[in-house]
Order: sequence, then structure tokens, then C-alpha cells
Amino acid sequence: MKRFIFFLLMIFISAPAVLWADGKISEDTGACLECHTSSHPGIVADWKKSRMTKITPAEALKKTEFERRISVNKVPIELAGNVVGCAECHTMNPERHRDTFDHEDYQVHTVVTPQDCATCHPVEVGQYSKNIMSHAHINLNNNPVYLNLMETINGQQSFDGVKTTYKKPDAKTNADSCNYCHGTKVEVQGVEARDTEFGELEFPVLKGWPNQGVGRINPDKSSGSCTSCHTRHHFSIEMARKPHTCSECHKGPDVPAYKVYQVSKHGNIYSSLSKEWKFDSVPWAVGKDFTAPTCATCHVSFVTNEDGEVVAKRTHQMNDRLSWRIFGLIYAHAHPKSPLTTIIHNKAGLPLPTELTGEPAAKYLIDTEEQGARRKTMEAVCLSCHSHGWVQGHFSRFENTIKVTNNMTLTATEILLSAWEKKVAKGLSENDSIFNEAIEKKWMEQWLFFANSTRYSSAMSGADYGVFANGRWYMSKNIQEMIDWVEFKMEKKH
Amino acid sequence: MKRFIFFLLMIFISAPAVLWADGKISEDTGACLECHTSSHPGIVADWKKSRMTKITPAEALKKTEFERRISVNKVPIELAGNVVGCAECHTMNPERHRDTFDHEDYQVHTVVTPQDCATCHPVEVGQYSKNIMSHAHINLNNNPVYLNLMETINGQQSFDGVKTTYKKPDAKTNADSCNYCHGTKVEVQGVEARDTEFGELEFPVLKGWPNQGVGRINPDKSSGSCTSCHTRHHFSIEMARKPHTCSECHKGPDVPAYKVYQVSKHGNIYSSLSKEWKFDSVPWAVGKDFTAPTCATCHVSFVTNEDGEVVAKRTHQMNDRLSWRIFGLIYAHAHPKSPLTTIIHNKAGLPLPTELTGEPAAKYLIDTEEQGARRKTMEAVCLSCHSHGWVQGHFSRFENTIKVTNNMTLTATEILLSAWEKKVAKGLSENDSIFNEAIEKKWMEQWLFFANSTRYSSAMSGADYGVFANGRWYMSKNIQEMIDWVEFKMEKKH
Amino acid sequence: MKRFIFFLLMIFISAPAVLWADGKISEDTGACLECHTSSHPGIVADWKKSRMTKITPAEALKKTEFERRISVNKVPIELAGNVVGCAECHTMNPERHRDTFDHEDYQVHTVVTPQDCATCHPVEVGQYSKNIMSHAHINLNNNPVYLNLMETINGQQSFDGVKTTYKKPDAKTNADSCNYCHGTKVEVQGVEARDTEFGELEFPVLKGWPNQGVGRINPDKSSGSCTSCHTRHHFSIEMARKPHTCSECHKGPDVPAYKVYQVSKHGNIYSSLSKEWKFDSVPWAVGKDFTAPTCATCHVSFVTNEDGEVVAKRTHQMNDRLSWRIFGLIYAHAHPKSPLTTIIHNKAGLPLPTELTGEPAAKYLIDTEEQGARRKTMEAVCLSCHSHGWVQGHFSRFENTIKVTNNMTLTATEILLSAWEKKVAKGLSENDSIFNEAIEKKWMEQWLFFANSTRYSSAMSGADYGVFANGRWYMSKNIQEMIDWVEFKMEKKH
Repeated sequence: MKRFIFFLLMIFISAPAVLWADGKISEDTGACLECHTSSHPGIVADWKKSRMTKITPAEALKKTEFERRISVNKVPIELAGNVVGCAECHTMNPERHRDTFDHEDYQVHTVVTPQDCATCHPVEVGQYSKNIMSHAHINLNNNPVYLNLMETINGQQSFDGVKTTYKKPDAKTNADSCNYCHGTKVEVQGVEARDTEFGELEFPVLKGWPNQGVGRINPDKSSGSCTSCHTRHHFSIEMARKPHTCSECHKGPDVPAYKVYQVSKHGNIYSSLSKEWKFDSVPWAVGKDFTAPTCATCHVSFVTNEDGEVVAKRTHQMNDRLSWRIFGLIYAHAHPKSPLTTIIHNKAGLPLPTELTGEPAAKYLIDTEEQGARRKTMEAVCLSCHSHGWVQGHFSRFENTIKVTNNMTLTATEILLSAWEKKVAKGLSENDSIFNEAIEKKWMEQWLFFANSTRYSSAMSGADYGVFANGRWYMSKNIQEMIDWVEFKMEKKH
Repeated sequence: MKRFIFFLLMIFISAPAVLWADGKISEDTGACLECHTSSHPGIVADWKKSRMTKITPAEALKKTEFERRISVNKVPIELAGNVVGCAECHTMNPERHRDTFDHEDYQVHTVVTPQDCATCHPVEVGQYSKNIMSHAHINLNNNPVYLNLMETINGQQSFDGVKTTYKKPDAKTNADSCNYCHGTKVEVQGVEARDTEFGELEFPVLKGWPNQGVGRINPDKSSGSCTSCHTRHHFSIEMARKPHTCSECHKGPDVPAYKVYQVSKHGNIYSSLSKEWKFDSVPWAVGKDFTAPTCATCHVSFVTNEDGEVVAKRTHQMNDRLSWRIFGLIYAHAHPKSPLTTIIHNKAGLPLPTELTGEPAAKYLIDTEEQGARRKTMEAVCLSCHSHGWVQGHFSRFENTIKVTNNMTLTATEILLSAWEKKVAKGLSENDSIFNEAIEKKWMEQWLFFANSTRYSSAMSGADYGVFANGRWYMSKNIQEMIDWVEFKMEKKH
Repeated sequence: MKRFIFFLLMIFISAPAVLWADGKISEDTGACLECHTSSHPGIVADWKKSRMTKITPAEALKKTEFERRISVNKVPIELAGNVVGCAECHTMNPERHRDTFDHEDYQVHTVVTPQDCATCHPVEVGQYSKNIMSHAHINLNNNPVYLNLMETINGQQSFDGVKTTYKKPDAKTNADSCNYCHGTKVEVQGVEARDTEFGELEFPVLKGWPNQGVGRINPDKSSGSCTSCHTRHHFSIEMARKPHTCSECHKGPDVPAYKVYQVSKHGNIYSSLSKEWKFDSVPWAVGKDFTAPTCATCHVSFVTNEDGEVVAKRTHQMNDRLSWRIFGLIYAHAHPKSPLTTIIHNKAGLPLPTELTGEPAAKYLIDTEEQGARRKTMEAVCLSCHSHGWVQGHFSRFENTIKVTNNMTLTATEILLSAWEKKVAKGLSENDSIFNEAIEKKWMEQWLFFANSTRYSSAMSGADYGVFANGRWYMSKNIQEMIDWVEFKMEKKH
């Protein structure tokens, strides 16, 4: 260890930039490494394995546009010649970062943000800002209906011997649950001094930290977190392309994409044979680099055939190959036009993309033409390995399933509305939460768990999740249980 | 791309068969590749990696019977000398295929069937025809009881303000759910003309397509689909032998074999160490090629010891190493004699292998002697790695678990029968569905989810699924909830 | 095969010990192999791949203490020079083993125990004896409350037309469920003679066998089973360090550690990138050998940084890096001082570490200081890759979640207590089981499934399991359903 530090010190004296494993590291990054190599060995080791240390931005710019992984035409001269290290990201845009602090004479910030990454990756950051995920914090926390759902889940209930009372959840609980994926709001609360092995040092105290949620609100006012998927500090494209990354947030009963993938033919091929695939080729050639899609293939990656002909362009707006939003709120619907969904209001005045009875809040949603265009983009990927008839058959069934599951959600909603009307449960007209009573929770499961699960199953061909594993079986059973619940409550009234 | 097509054209002119990567491809297959290499690159790339392109049938016949992967003694002369390519399968038996269509002067069919595969693999296709799975479509769709179960799951329910009504499910929903695994009936509905990059072409329009379910009814009247497990177009034996293939249909709560395997010692060894195993050896030598079983090892594969002594012969009738059918319908029972189970009727006249109260419909089921023989076949596999005492202990517990779970199903059934008798639910005597009311759905979960899960857990030693993960805990709880349900309904009546 | 046996016989005649693949095997082990290589090829092949055959104890002692995998300073001279084979373990301590039997003139026992392993690994066995897991059989089976829980789960229920009756479960059922992981009591029941390919031989008949549960009671009176994690006969450290080993018992809804890990960032990195890691280095260097933790990293392994500086010492007392026991019984609490938890009694006299209303039975539990020390040990692992602020933020949320989930358990408990008081359910004062009625089962799910799941989710950062996948959603819903249940029962009474 000591010899290594000595070695680093020696070369810092003689040169402004030194040769790292493969590339040149800046003097500033060298200074970071002096201490952090020993205090956080895992971070440094991870970064050393990353592409960031293998190639400088200047060298990257020499590659063809197809192969290039940065999307600027020109990199600021002071960044071009060194590999991207600690200092390059953690001292970027210091004036915009409220979490900037003076650290051994460097203006360092803890939370690296999409705004920082945009220095080299502006196209991806721009696309991502149109991705609903980048607004996941706001879309959940600033929508009164969804916020109330979160509160009835996370809020503590107490019992007074007769009835229960809900208390609003604390911020730590929200950060530990919904906002773990949706993103927290990271704020500087103050500063604390701390004894370290390098003497007393001052650090900012951050609220909402740690977090790597997709819609995180950052101390530089940007939103999103690239490391949700591009896990630091390796930033491995292999990892971003593997389905385990998506599974961090897309495995639960509300959005069981990963589970469905696992039992699909695609997932089976991935699990059985992907050890032979090349996960780091850019572009990604179907047949040559891989023989079945992962999540990224269909939803994100720049895919070509073996001859380099484009199958699908790279996108970080992940719904631009998707015509339907199958995540029901409360019904599946055409994708919203704006990624900021808090602007949406249905005719009843609720901040929802459909009426309670299913009619879409059409003016906020993409039209049939745009839906067709997006489906076509997706079909281009399917057609790499499937015939036209296969693809048509698949989508025809999928759209039928959207209709049927919406109908089954409607039936559940009608039972709930009748419960409200019969005054056996309190709903909108009593200005009561629509998620706090047992029958309302059953209703929510109908669409958020069972209809969603069935649609994901259909979209990605993992049939179990459309039948017995949270699928149609539960939609069917739930309706009978809702009916019984109303009956029992009516009985009590009389 | 273009140069490649040109190259292909050149050699087609000069020779009837050309050298592919490893083997000779036929002129017909070469013609397919001319266009399909570019229109469906994934399919072609997959096939190029397959064993099909590495060896001709004639060369295969030179191998010993142990190592050989085809089961004919003689291959038709016109097929023997070329590797098996597009044309070999998709133009096989054209007169038998209702989906045959004229395609660039070839008589092509879309759906390759077991009858086609039997040209080289007749023994496997013969065995598979005795496998219950090959009749999975008929066994489900033509059995009035199971069909009704499917209808109450997949049929839409509507609510009229008081009660719910079931509607029969549409064919697309059934294809998207139960029949995804059980197999659809694939039928030619007509023909459509379509503009392609090669001009206007005509294609058959298929109903029930796509599908790769194990009991698919094919346009050539055969049933089954080899690609359920032998995923096209790689047909990788490695993949067929890995548990992910089975998990496509055997992971849900009704048949959680894969989940149980994952938490078993066997599954743990597979997950932790199988990267060193050889998955493509034929025969498959325990200890040398692998050190713990996958699904295929115990249920399908030709297994030997390191010295080539036979441990178990290959079978595609997957129950011939199984003495019990632990998938309760509604009780676990000795395996049916006939793979076509629609012929079975219990004494009460229901198309079930047991009475509602559990007594087996013995004349349709294998007898104790045959059960013993099958268990012995399985034990030979176990004994490769376990002592006699271990194996006896295991099976003794397993058979005890069959009894106990059947008893717990009986208790649930008795509660249901009492509900019918007390007229708080409508059952057989009212000629009403036995799956449509809430208590009937609870009853179904008792055997299809909880008793099944417990038995799979026991059979394959993954204890979690026999206790808290859909196992005994739920069997026990469900009975209490059924009792309460009857009580509440009785209360209402009075 | 025969030639191989002949070869073995030849060399046995000429030398007391022979060269195996890499090391010398003893004459006794050679004798075992004569027959068992052919009768159980899987076992022998597995063992041949193990480190046991690569190095003799004498050679192991020459390694540095850091690298050494045995923890004795001296190995008995008769064991030092040969690799550890069949005879070394299965004839160790014959006089202590009630399962010792005469087998071809050797005193052999079937069940190898921690006492046997302690010959070379005494430190690990000593640590493990302080691990709660080593008492898992007794802690469950000898605690009247937990035993009653087991009995209400595993016991058969019968129905007499009005009510249900529980029967005590049989031993095979318990062995097939709870005791599969907790460990059975293995006892010698008698002896049976059996025809083998080597003539008639006598073997002991063991009750409670097979089993590899962590707290198994062995025929030599020791408790525990090293092969729970160190799967025989490969004893692969790679396997013990991979999360699949822990998943055998830690995946169910009561203790979903593995499921949480899978959707955590750590689990994602493991699933995506671990094929490049070194799983067999001792010590295990963070950054160099691996870049994200598995279960073993945080809870067991000897971890250093790349320069060999100790991050965490190896422990087989798996709670000495844990300040809280988040597995609620019925509330999360400070870890018990003694691994034998049957000694614990709360003020109400119940054998539980907390009162029914949550106050800890403090004198049996570690104090705040010890909790702090254990947290510090764990934090050292975290700090390898995370900043101080990150780690503090994480633990602050985690401890908040412990409080909130305990409160939600308290609310459920208060509802149950009120049900008992109102005489709609029978509880402690009626001397009735607290787990047999539907509302009691709901109550148990509140803490054993939903609160536990939420805490594991928080501890290991897999948010789904703290929200919709058995987490806060179910805690919240369950309370509403418990309230409704009481209401319905009260209705009936009136």
C-alpha cells in the first residue's frame, strides 16, 4: 500500500498526467486515488476495470459514430486527453451542485448527476429526460392519488380497540420503499466534521441519501440517476444489458417484467446459453453477438444485423418502442405524451390517465398513429428472428389481452363503486382515501397486480404469470371475494 | 450482405450442394438462405451454431448407438448427404401439411411437427407420443371439468349491481394463457397476399399461431411440439438439459418444480458449479460430465457412469421413471395408463382419475407393480450419488407426504361438500360450475396450489415450498378460511 | 471398471498409501474406493474434484495462517500425510458414534458431524457452536410456542361437518418440512441386512435420515451439519460463498434474504459479472477477487483489501456482525446472548425474546454496546465500497424500518388481543393454541412474513420486498382484513 502511494507521489511530481492501466489519468484524479484507493478499495478496483480507464474522450472521438459510446462531437480540451476518473465526474459543474464541498482544496460533490454525465453523453441524457422514469419521483410524490396510495401503504396504522387510524409515513420509510426505485429528493441538510484517518474533515450531510432511483431529484436540480442502470463505478455495458439490472425495480407483483422474462423462451435462451454471447459490442449485432433478446435489446439498445444494417436505433426514452402503457393506472392506456404525468387530469378531475371507468384521457395520450409507429419500431426487432405471421399473431393476442384485462378491472371497479354507493365503504364522495379499506385494497390488486401481471405475461410471452402466478386466476377469484365482502358488509348493516 | 448473396448464387450455379461452415447444405436450403439470411438474421445465425449444420445424417449413422443422436437405422438417400437445413424440415411431408403453401416454387410449411422430426428421430417421437404432455391440449380442452376450470379463469366476468356473470373466454385469451403451455390447435384460416422486399407473396393465415406448447395440435394432424424443449433453431442439447427450459411451464404455483429445484441441494450445486459441466456429451456421464442432476438427468436423459455403464436409458415418455402423479387432479394418484386422459371416468361419472373423496379410478391407473418398477428406474439415478439408506429414507417421506396432502385435500373437499349441502354454494347437484364461487376457488387452491407445492417440495427436496412458500402453511390456513366462509354464509341465510 | 479395480488392488498390495490425482490417499480410503467408485460414482467423482484430494494436512500447515484453511496447529500424525478421504471422516471417532457399524472390518459411520470435522477445523466448529443455527433443531422443537406453530402447520386437520380438529404431525412430515432446514434428530433404530452386489451386508437403520439441516442432532450427540453449506463431497468454498447455498433455507416468505439479494444492486452485480470473480481465494480480497458482496462476504468470510489488510475476520458465528435480529419472534430485537434460545422467557412467562406487546426480554439479549460493536464490524465491510455518509444513511433507515415494522406488528397484536378479549377467538387465557384460528394465522403472517420481508428488504436494499412483494402493502392490508374478521365474528355473536 505505502509503496504504491509513494510511487504515485513520485510520478505526480514529475508529470501532470500519468499512465494508468491503459489510459492517462489526470493529476486531480491521481490526488483522489492517493487516499481513496486504500479507504474504499472496492470503488477504485471497480473503476479500474471499467471502460472509463481504457480510453480517453479524445481517442473515443476517433471511432466511427456507430461504435462510439459518447455522443458529443467535441469534448472540452481539459477533459479530452485523460481517462475519466474520480475528479472528472465528482468535480464537474461545481457551481451547480449544492452538495459541493471543499475537500483537500478540491470542490467535490458526492452525487454525480445526469447533468454531469451529459458532458460526454448529451444525446442519451436528452433522451432519458423524455423517459417517464426520469420523472418517477415527481410523478409519484406530486400526484395526490398516487401519493395517497403510497401513504396508505407506508403509513403506520394504530388500533384504538374499535377502529384503525392511518398516520402519514416518515421520509425514511418512503425512501426505503417506493422512492428507492422512484428516486428520493437529495438535499443538503448541513455539514458535519468527522475524524478520519487523514485528520478531521468536513462533509455535507445529505437527506434522501443514499439513493440511485431512476427519477432522483439531485442537488444540482437535475432529475434522474444514470447509475440506476449503469452501475458505478464499473459502468459495465454488459451489466446494463443483462436483465438483472432491470429486475432491481421490475420484479414485484405490480410490474413483474423480469419474472415473466425468466419463464419466457427468450429468458430461457438467455439463462441457458448467454455465457457465449458478447455483451459489450457496440452496435449489438443480432445473431452474431446474441441469439435472444434481453430487456435492453427490445427497449434500449442500438441493434444491427450481422452486416451492420440498423435494426433499431439506441434510445434512452424507453417507451418509444412501446405503443401501450400496460402498467395500469388504473387501466392500460396509450402512452402519455409528456413524461411528466402530473399534468394529466381526466374528465372527473382526477390526476389519472383514464376515467375510473376506463375511458382514456385522450388529449394527454399519444394517438393511434404514434402508437402504430412505435409498434413498428418494436416489430423491427421481433422480425430479426420471427416471421411476419408470428409477430402479427403475437401482437393481436397482446392487444386482445389489454382489452380483456381492462374489462376485468372495470368489473372490479363497478363492484367498488357499488360498495361506495351502498355506503359499506367510504370513497370519493366522502372525500375518503380510495385505498384504505379492505375492499379498496382488493380493488387495487385487481389492476396493479393481477391485470398488470397478465399483460406483462402476454407482452413478453411468459404464460405462467398470466394464469396461476398472479394472473387471470387471481383476477377471477378477486371479483368473487369483492362481491362476498360487499355482501357481508350489507348483511351487517341490516 | 450483397457480396454474400452473390457468392451463394455463384456456387449454386456450379454445384447442387455447397460446403457450409462444417457440413454440406442442400441446394434447396441454399435457396432459402438467399433471402432469409437477411430478412431473419437471428434464425439463420442460430441454426448455423446448431449441431444440425455440423454433421450430416450419413455421418451420424457412423457413430456408435450410444453416441448417436438420431434413432433411424437408415436415412432416406436424398437426405443423408446434406446437413439438415431450412428446406429439409420446412418442406418435409408437404402433402400431409394443410399449412403447405407455394413459396418461390417450393412447397413450404410453417409449422414443423413431430411427424417431420420423426424422419430422423422416430424413437423419441414414439416415446413422446406416450408422454402425457403430448396430449396436453386435448387433455385440458376436451375434459369438461378442466375445460370449465379454464373457462372460469379466463372468462370475463361482468357485474350487474348485484351479482356477477361469467362469459366464455375467447380463443386468443386461451392461447395466451393455458394453451400457451398445453398447446393450441393450429389451423389454416385462409391465405393473404403481402408486399415484401422480394415483391408480393402469398402466405397462409394461421389460427392458434404462434405456439410451441407441448400438446399442440398441428396442421398435419400430429400433436406435440419438439421445439417446446428443443428450442429452434439452435436445438441445443445443452439448453434442453438445463432447468430453465422446464421452468417455462413448470414454475407456477400449480407445478412449482423449478422453484423447488432452485432451493434444493441439487439446484444449488447446479447454480454454483455447473459452469464447469459438460452439457453436450451423449451419453451423459455422472461424475464426469456433471455432479448434480438437472430436470433432464432424472426424467429424460441417457445417463451412464464414467465407465459407460448404463444408469438410466433415455426416455421421452417422461413419467416412466415416476410412480406417482403428484400433480393432484384433485388428489395425487398412480400415473394414468394412457397418456390420453380424457378416457378416464371415476365411479361418480366425472372425468377425473379419483373420486371427489380421493379413491383412485384404479382401472385407468398403473398398478402397484408398475409403480414399483418405475420407482426402481428412478432410484438407479439417485443411487449414483446417494446410499441405499438415504434413498429409502427419501422415498418413505415422500410417500408419507402424498398421503398427508391427500388427507388435507379431503378435509377441504368435505368442507366444500358441506357448503353445497347447506346450499350456501352451488355445486354438482345444481349442475353449477365447481370453480366459480369464492369457496370453490379456495378449494381449488388447496389441491392445485398448496398440496401440489408441498408434494413437489417433498419429491425434490426444496423444503421452503412445503412450508411457508405455498406449502403446508397455506393448506392449514385455507381450511380455517373455508370454515369461516361457510359460517358467514350460513349466518346470512338465517 | 474392472481393470481399474485390478489396478487399485495391485498398488494396495505394494504400498500402504498411493498417489491419487494430486495427493496421497490412505490405505483405508483406498479400500473404500475399491467398491464405492462403482457403486456411487457421483460421490467419488465429486470428492476427486475437491480440495481434500489436492493437499494433505501436513502440506496445509506449511501455508501462512492467512491462507490456511485448517485451524489446528498440529494434525494427528496418522492423518497428516494423506489427503482427507472416505475413511478419514467416516471412521473418525468411532466410539462416539452410535451409528458406527462394522463394514468389511472397518468401523464406519454414516453421519459425519461437526465433531469429526473439528479434527482439522476446530476454530470454525467452535464458532459455529455459538451460532444460533447450530441449535436450530432444539430452538424450534423444544420451545413450546414455536413447536405449537409447527404443529398447527404440519398437523392434519379433519372436519366433522361443523368444526375442524388438529392432529399432531408425524415425524416424517416434520422432517420433510421445518426440520429439513432446522435439522432432524438422527437416531439409530436398528440394523438391517441387505443383499448387495458384494454379498449380504448389515447396515444401521437411521431415523431422521437423510438430513443436512443446520441444527441436526447427530448420533454422536453433537449438533449441526457442516454440509448444510459445505456441500459434500466437493466441499467447494466457491459454492459456500455463492448465494445459492444460503437460498436453500433463506428464500421463503419468512426469511426472504436471497430474494431480496437478487433484486439488490449487490445481487445484480453478482448475477451480471461474477463469472470473472475468484471465489476460491483465501483470504478473499475485495476489488481483486470480487466487486460486490455475496451473503458470505458480509456474514462469514475472511475479507481483506488488495494489500492484505484485514477488512473482516472469518466467523462461523454468523450473527457477530449483526446488531439486530430482524427475524421477528414476534418483534425484531437485539440478538440473544445465548445461541440456545429455549432458555429465554419474557415477563409473561412465554418462551419469547419479547413480550407480546414488543418490550424486549432484555436480560437475554445483547446490550446496546455489543450491538454497536457488531454494527461496526459490519460497517467495515460496507466501507470497502461505500462512503461514510452512505453507510450512515443506510443504517439510519434500516433502524427506522425496524421500529416501524415493530409498530405495525403491535397494531396487529392489539387487534388479536381484542379478538381474544371479545371471545370471538380463543387465545392464551383459554389455553388454546395462538396459531390455529384464521385471525391468528393472519396475525402470524403480519410479523413472520410481512414485517420480516420488509426488514430484510431494508437491511439488504431490495426494495420490492419491502413494498408490493410481501412488504408494507401486505402489512397494511392485513390489518384491514383482521379488523373485518373481528367485525364479522362480532356480528355473528349478536
